[in-house]
Amino acid sequence: MNDTRHDPRQQEVRVAVDDLERFMGEALTRAGADAASSAAVTRALVTASRMGTDSHGLRLLPHYIRALEGGRIKGAPEMHFTRRLPATGVLDAGDGFGHLAGYTAMAHVVEMADEVGMGAVAVGHSSHFGAAGCYALAAAERGMIGLAFCNSDPFVLLHQGLSPFHGTNPIAFAAPVEGQSPYLLDMATSSVPWNRVQQYGAIGRELPDQVAADAEGRVTRVPAEVSALLPLGGSDFGFKGAGLGGMVEVLSSTLSGMLNGFRLLPMGGPDMATPRGVGHFFLALNPAAFVDGATFAAGLAEYLADLRAQPAVDGAEVLAPGDREWRYLAQRDAEGIPLDSANQVAYATLAKTLDVRPLRHLA
Amino acid sequence: MNDTRHDPRQQEVRVAVDDLERFMGEALTRAGADAASSAAVTRALVTASRMGTDSHGLRLLPHYIRALEGGRIKGAPEMHFTRRLPATGVLDAGDGFGHLAGYTAMAHVVEMADEVGMGAVAVGHSSHFGAAGCYALAAAERGMIGLAFCNSDPFVLLHQGLSPFHGTNPIAFAAPVEGQSPYLLDMATSSVPWNRVQQYGAIGRELPDQVAADAEGRVTRVPAEVSALLPLGGSDFGFKGAGLGGMVEVLSSTLSGMLNGFRLLPMGGPDMATPRGVGHFFLALNPAAFVDGATFAAGLAEYLADLRAQPAVDGAEVLAPGDREWRYLAQRDAEGIPLDSANQVAYATLAKTLDVRPLRHLA
Repeated sequence: MNDTRHDPRQQEVRVAVDDLERFMGEALTRAGADAASSAAVTRALVTASRMGTDSHGLRLLPHYIRALEGGRIKGAPEMHFTRRLPATGVLDAGDGFGHLAGYTAMAHVVEMADEVGMGAVAVGHSSHFGAAGCYALAAAERGMIGLAFCNSDPFVLLHQGLSPFHGTNPIAFAAPVEGQSPYLLDMATSSVPWNRVQQYGAIGRELPDQVAADAEGRVTRVPAEVSALLPLGGSDFGFKGAGLGGMVEVLSSTLSGMLNGFRLLPMGGPDMATPRGVGHFFLALNPAAFVDGATFAAGLAEYLADLRAQPAVDGAEVLAPGDREWRYLAQRDAEGIPLDSANQVAYATLAKTLDVRPLRHLA
Repeated sequence: MNDTRHDPRQQEVRVAVDDLERFMGEALTRAGADAASSAAVTRALVTASRMGTDSHGLRLLPHYIRALEGGRIKGAPEMHFTRRLPATGVLDAGDGFGHLAGYTAMAHVVEMADEVGMGAVAVGHSSHFGAAGCYALAAAERGMIGLAFCNSDPFVLLHQGLSPFHGTNPIAFAAPVEGQSPYLLDMATSSVPWNRVQQYGAIGRELPDQVAADAEGRVTRVPAEVSALLPLGGSDFGFKGAGLGGMVEVLSSTLSGMLNGFRLLPMGGPDMATPRGVGHFFLALNPAAFVDGATFAAGLAEYLADLRAQPAVDGAEVLAPGDREWRYLAQRDAEGIPLDSANQVAYATLAKTLDVRPLRHLA
């Protein structure tokens, strides 16, 4: 809905990365977030916006502020980490921000992977954590292979189902690449995110085939008819996307002792006062716990060189997971992050209501 | 090609599970497999056939016998396991059967998960291991959440690619369910397996849309035009299937120090003498290392009850991953395992050349 690359009617400006960080930090602090929460949310949202993941970037700040002010999310949570066994732990996120829970859990996971080769943490009593890729990336930045998973309230049909059951339950996987940006896969287990339907509806555009269905479970490409998303794989092979979504669900909610996503309160409200009990799951593998570092580095470099050397169909190119994101990041760090007209209004409102110095528009 | 449910021209008979086990064990032994190898291959193939996974069941025995007799696979391998850190290890499979490597590695993984909460083993110098689900299932049968991954020689395009790059690189995930059969997801990261193309070609049937492409990378539904498979997600969302296939590749080959799948010798030969150096990756999570056992059991049961209670589109039903397989298993244990005409010939030939008492046909 807020991705202006598809909406020529919107007037876009750009803002500098450091100015956006400054604004987010101040806004979250004014709304009641403690220093750690404010830093974590800012880090995750700015990382997503820099990488071009606009669905999970700056557009979410107003939502998080509402959840904080409504009491759904605690701005100064008591998070409790318990390392239950050498390779495993649980984090009770105390109904705080999922971003703080995510970075906190991943730090523990990386420490365990450093010590015993691998680590995993199940997080309970958490909230929306933004883009799953941020946390996988945090592990890769420490030299580990990182995975991140999260459940959510239902938007996605089961295979041959009629009612939304899973969330878009993401899977993120990142691996460190010597001398390059990490391999980074961050994918919903539906084909498209829910806001793509809203966005296409707003501009009168047809959806791709096999991504969404109406209330009778029939595939539709008309946004106004959409009742739910199809799992990745569509009508014929949606059992794969639904099965992956289920794997994410089991890891995120069953291992953390939370309710499954079908039973979660909706992210969008109207109840912004009751904590939702979102679950996450984080895992890190230490490559050196399997193979010596030089062999790992050479093997991954060779794999990526082989991959990027593959011929592409006319007018396209073959990319490794993350390549698109790193291009966005370089461009946006240089030229600023786009702020579409809806977000210009939202950020101006936040500036006024929270008494924060407005973002400076670069263009 | 050998799935007779789609080919009315073939005459199908059935064979008993124990008779099939007897035949496979004798045939493998006569062809030079040691007791452990013979037992592991038999266990994996019979498990797949019982579960209805015909592409990875009994039809593969003649292929394995050829690989054994050709020298590609060692029937009496020296496998070396090294536990490098408390949660991680590597298994050098000594160019033996992937099935023995898989069950051996998973036994170590389960032991580590029991001790430190989680375990993972990267396997190198291995060979085709059949259905990935067999090994995830072996963990679930021991009360653990199990994951299994394997690379293979290329059949699948990258997103927007023109040449096959990844194998059908499977992901298997199994979780123990109290009082029920396990949750079991076993999926290729392409939409269909390669042999589906051959099978549909043989019976003059069109492929589903978005599963395969011709040599120019154009989607085709005509089996004779197919040059490669598309990754799960098809033309629009194949970056997801390709990214998952890449995750499988990194875990299976990079962490085991093997060549990536693009560089592997083809499974189908003609070289049946040179070991291929296939890689696998196995991981187990101990649910009790995250949450108490009763909470895990109740949470997973509730999730599955919620899932199975979802309404379905007309004429269909909503199933959990594995439900279809457990139905096949019950039916085939009672009525026997189907042997199509091609496999009748192949098994009769094996009986003769290896001097093994033929399978008894139930019908």
